[in-house]
Amino acid sequence: MIYFNSDYTEGAHPLILERLLETNLCQTVGYGEDEYCENARNLIKKACGRNDIDVHFLVGGTQANTTVIASILKPYQAAVSTKIGHINVHETGAIEATGHKVIGLECKSDGKLSAKAVEDFYNAHWNDVTHEHQPQPKLVYISNSTENGAVYKKSELKALSEVCKKCGLYLFLDGARLGYALASPENDLTLNDLCEYCDVFYIGGTKVGALFGEAVVIINPALKEDFRYNIKQRGGMLAKGRLLGLQFETLFTDDLYFKISHHAVKLAFKIADALTENGVKFLSTPISNQIFPIFTNEVIKRIEEKYLISFWEKVDEERSAIRICTSWATKEENADKLIKDILEIIKEK
Amino acid sequence: MIYFNSDYTEGAHPLILERLLETNLCQTVGYGEDEYCENARNLIKKACGRNDIDVHFLVGGTQANTTVIASILKPYQAAVSTKIGHINVHETGAIEATGHKVIGLECKSDGKLSAKAVEDFYNAHWNDVTHEHQPQPKLVYISNSTENGAVYKKSELKALSEVCKKCGLYLFLDGARLGYALASPENDLTLNDLCEYCDVFYIGGTKVGALFGEAVVIINPALKEDFRYNIKQRGGMLAKGRLLGLQFETLFTDDLYFKISHHAVKLAFKIADALTENGVKFLSTPISNQIFPIFTNEVIKRIEEKYLISFWEKVDEERSAIRICTSWATKEENADKLIKDILEIIKEK
Amino acid sequence: MIYFNSDYTEGAHPLILERLLETNLCQTVGYGEDEYCENARNLIKKACGRNDIDVHFLVGGTQANTTVIASILKPYQAAVSTKIGHINVHETGAIEATGHKVIGLECKSDGKLSAKAVEDFYNAHWNDVTHEHQPQPKLVYISNSTENGAVYKKSELKALSEVCKKCGLYLFLDGARLGYALASPENDLTLNDLCEYCDVFYIGGTKVGALFGEAVVIINPALKEDFRYNIKQRGGMLAKGRLLGLQFETLFTDDLYFKISHHAVKLAFKIADALTENGVKFLSTPISNQIFPIFTNEVIKRIEEKYLISFWEKVDEERSAIRICTSWATKEENADKLIKDILEIIKEK
Amino acid sequence: MIYFNSDYTEGAHPLILERLLETNLCQTVGYGEDEYCENARNLIKKACGRNDIDVHFLVGGTQANTTVIASILKPYQAAVSTKIGHINVHETGAIEATGHKVIGLECKSDGKLSAKAVEDFYNAHWNDVTHEHQPQPKLVYISNSTENGAVYKKSELKALSEVCKKCGLYLFLDGARLGYALASPENDLTLNDLCEYCDVFYIGGTKVGALFGEAVVIINPALKEDFRYNIKQRGGMLAKGRLLGLQFETLFTDDLYFKISHHAVKLAFKIADALTENGVKFLSTPISNQIFPIFTNEVIKRIEEKYLISFWEKVDEERSAIRICTSWATKEENADKLIKDILEIIKEK
Repeated sequence: MIYFNSDYTEGAHPLILERLLETNLCQTVGYGEDEYCENARNLIKKACGRNDIDVHFLVGGTQANTTVIASILKPYQAAVSTKIGHINVHETGAIEATGHKVIGLECKSDGKLSAKAVEDFYNAHWNDVTHEHQPQPKLVYISNSTENGAVYKKSELKALSEVCKKCGLYLFLDGARLGYALASPENDLTLNDLCEYCDVFYIGGTKVGALFGEAVVIINPALKEDFRYNIKQRGGMLAKGRLLGLQFETLFTDDLYFKISHHAVKLAFKIADALTENGVKFLSTPISNQIFPIFTNEVIKRIEEKYLISFWEKVDEERSAIRICTSWATKEENADKLIKDILEIIKEK
Repeated sequence: MIYFNSDYTEGAHPLILERLLETNLCQTVGYGEDEYCENARNLIKKACGRNDIDVHFLVGGTQANTTVIASILKPYQAAVSTKIGHINVHETGAIEATGHKVIGLECKSDGKLSAKAVEDFYNAHWNDVTHEHQPQPKLVYISNSTENGAVYKKSELKALSEVCKKCGLYLFLDGARLGYALASPENDLTLNDLCEYCDVFYIGGTKVGALFGEAVVIINPALKEDFRYNIKQRGGMLAKGRLLGLQFETLFTDDLYFKISHHAVKLAFKIADALTENGVKFLSTPISNQIFPIFTNEVIKRIEEKYLISFWEKVDEERSAIRICTSWATKEENADKLIKDILEIIKEK
Repeated sequence: MIYFNSDYTEGAHPLILERLLETNLCQTVGYGEDEYCENARNLIKKACGRNDIDVHFLVGGTQANTTVIASILKPYQAAVSTKIGHINVHETGAIEATGHKVIGLECKSDGKLSAKAVEDFYNAHWNDVTHEHQPQPKLVYISNSTENGAVYKKSELKALSEVCKKCGLYLFLDGARLGYALASPENDLTLNDLCEYCDVFYIGGTKVGALFGEAVVIINPALKEDFRYNIKQRGGMLAKGRLLGLQFETLFTDDLYFKISHHAVKLAFKIADALTENGVKFLSTPISNQIFPIFTNEVIKRIEEKYLISFWEKVDEERSAIRICTSWATKEENADKLIKDILEIIKEK
Repeated sequence: MIYFNSDYTEGAHPLILERLLETNLCQTVGYGEDEYCENARNLIKKACGRNDIDVHFLVGGTQANTTVIASILKPYQAAVSTKIGHINVHETGAIEATGHKVIGLECKSDGKLSAKAVEDFYNAHWNDVTHEHQPQPKLVYISNSTENGAVYKKSELKALSEVCKKCGLYLFLDGARLGYALASPENDLTLNDLCEYCDVFYIGGTKVGALFGEAVVIINPALKEDFRYNIKQRGGMLAKGRLLGLQFETLFTDDLYFKISHHAVKLAFKIADALTENGVKFLSTPISNQIFPIFTNEVIKRIEEKYLISFWEKVDEERSAIRICTSWATKEENADKLIKDILEIIKEK
């Protein structure tokens, strides 16, 4: 059985394990105050082209989303997301558990939130005479790439940023799959752009080569104060914080983070192109490392005999979309095998 | 200016004030453990035809909703409501502030939640392989009358109750306007039925003759334990709890609660019938003390010169629905005046 | 049985009931935006000698404490109180339920918090290398009069205020019994002083003549924004907000609030003086409307045959302190009767 | 500079890194549902001699404490700890952030909580007429070894367990340093005993050979349901859950967990014995891998020139206690060097 169901099916990039091995018995202080973390923070600042940002390392995505959002909002304030936003549907109410409503706005099938949707919602809140009886929108949450694999264009992010600034909303970008977004042929954003347009974002490690870890980048000075208290309170302050430092040090040395992201996207496109050429339709245009081809349920059953994939959604009575995920760890030979097998199954039918 | 904008524009039914006056200097213990509260609890048990229920008095609706829901759910569990449910839109995230997501299901314009919608959602949750990544539905919240003035039929409530029992969900009925629901010509439910079908519900006083106060009725024995700790923690334990006892004593003596509710509904129908006869359309069929006639924006502007009403929603570019509310305190002469004035305005146009 | 167990055993001052009666059928908008509330706010501003303060009306003390504290603190920040502070022991964890630790500092038997205790604790926090692993102190909570009936002197409050300002801590004064504190012969504070020294405080109505109600006064501009959202979220926004306005209007007309407070303290001192003259000792010097005489357990049993009092604490195997509370409603003849009966019981032994 | 300041200054036991390397490119499903986790769970069940327990892997201690406690308590219930309990002082209010008060009882300098202290507090709560105004004690939290390095005797744990059962309290044991407790010469407990006496406990990995990870063992069937929802909500569900499985698999193969714990305690005693023989006093008797010798401040300053240790507490104006921690990774040569250097410094003085 070969896994294409997600981008966290293997351990870590070999260079990371190597680095863990070579530093294993070095002694350091805990909680992210060691030299490796310091070095990693500096490498990320350099990659962002900014010295005035704060960088913190957290273990996972739910933790990063929860810690950031809860650190920003006042009790009566809400986060605005798309309806399918990860914080709105796939974190077991982690945000609500910190006391805040997540407001899920309608979005297109690409899962992107538009500047207009945000502005309209903001205006609707403040124009309503009963606004004090409703949670106050204060933070906009987006994912890049989105839950459906799309990536934001610079113009879109800029527009969102402008609306947020105009409305006094904070813009927070969930970058669990940021590497794969930046590696998309559609992408025209840089880390430096993210620093310009977002108040806070994070660079995902868990899905992009690390054992685990997300690097939170805080740009807005108002959001920097006492962030470590928040990390500790939300259970995210790793005793051996060095492990996070060592991993991000490795990922941001010699552009490793970008190289392995490109590898994943290249293979996703190889698969997508082969399927497209053979008449397969997609739920949304393939853009990054997640692609969503549509097959008959019978074909899917056959694919699942050899491959682990994710069921995504029913399209009609006979057909469904599945998600195929590539990653830094995907072997080209497995991608080729998958293509070959799918095309064979299709032809048989 | 005459007010038809809500059902809480006056003080209390005169008999309540009288009772407060005559007991004013009697000394009692605090926190709802006095004789007046005890007597009120017994009167409500009698009205419900049940001795095995617990009755607690809270000050207001947000408090009642929050205290009940937070007392029932485990941290990872969610309340299921309609999209327009009061807890989902008009309590400034009070439920989320206790850590729980409110899941807003689609509903018809009447604002009722169907048994089928609940069952489908429940099944969707448990059939999803990632269900542990989503808040677990555990409580169903409905309002009777609904936010849009509709009332549940016995068959509908029974069906909801059966689905809830089957799925292990608790059924909670918000009765802020329960008096007006029970007084509707559409109604075929009794307080005894509510005890049969709900796990917990409350009998609204604030909008039905009291200065303030909601009587929470807990039927499910599993939900009774330590409820007073919850009340205290959520800020709902009134020092002079007697005030709540005295009010509900009065409302449940000589059927006062039902008589004044009927008065309100009778006047709402008088207005609705007169408008209907003159060709006015409604957003939804008039059913209880809230009615939602549709007028051109110009007509609305004219009405607002003399009357305070609630803007409800835009129907199209030229027309909108308003809400007209009657209550225990509405004077028939004012209802007549409103009818006369509206009909005049309409004719002029 | 005559009640001296607390200061909330009766209804409201007759003038308040009169006012409720005379306005009962006037129509107003809800949620504290009516004219009575507006007028009450202005009267309180006048009594405080300040126009630049915000005044909000809440129903009860737990609600006021919770809403104020939760509106101020960031998630990782804590409230600092005395060990016996009301928020630390008698609110069923209401503050913790909003996510914040209450840190209870040692105090003398009077229940007052000293400027030195606050400063020492603040310094200990910031000098500890692991301070990020501890909740950050940010708000100081005091009660005036305290839980043990003492009142703050102007010099003490000033010192606390200075330490708080120096340390960047907010000073919040719980005035559930503020009337009785200001009426104490020990008192040298005015409402205007409270505005000078506190960031926020409240003027208790529930225990001082009202049916219910606490008037929160916010002085620090940084704490004013969006306070009404907080009130709504915490369940404290009374639909018929007018009831709070009408009560505080009455209390702050013709100095009623101060006059009835003086009445209570005068009677407490009458009782205390009579007991002292007859050799009775007190747990702490009588200062306001709560006094804590010490009797043998046998004497207490005898007193309890005719009077409801509060057991306070064991002094030794044979003796205990009780609390005797007077209020705006205490009749002088009852105080005289109590004195007479206690002295008789003592002499018999 | 050699580190003796804590037991988390290195990476992981070499066998763990080896195992990570050899499985690195194997593909698994996420979130702890892989074979490595399954195997690790079985190994722990075997080590506990119980098949009827649930085992879950979390990343860190704050997370484990928060997730367990929040999963058990109802909103108005509190955790009872010692005054110096980790959850009471060193988790930035993480427990309170989930809504629960931590009640810190007085304890001896060893940091152990006695059965009597728990029972007395429980009785005091329920005998107080105002108990509904106080958080209800429901869970007892202890650490083994304690924050001050002591270990519970079987008789002590049995007594605590019996009191908890009698009072309807849950007993939760924080085993962040459980390996070192079980390796103490004072210890007479087994993992099987912990299953008998506790409702839930955890086996610490972070401080005992793992990169990170705590294995939560749930014995009480009432606490097992839906625990994974809690893990996800609190941010503790590691995407690559396999990493936790692989580590605990290794630690519970060939008794590695116990062997490396013994190594640490052996070296701690070597240091303690050498110091004792030379007249050094300790804050509390050395019992496990944390020892607390007392030196003059001058001596401490000299020690700190070559060694990183933890300042613990001031003993008097001239002397303080420090904490010296050994671990699975401590080299015997470094322990010897420390002894030699300290003895030299002492003699010079």
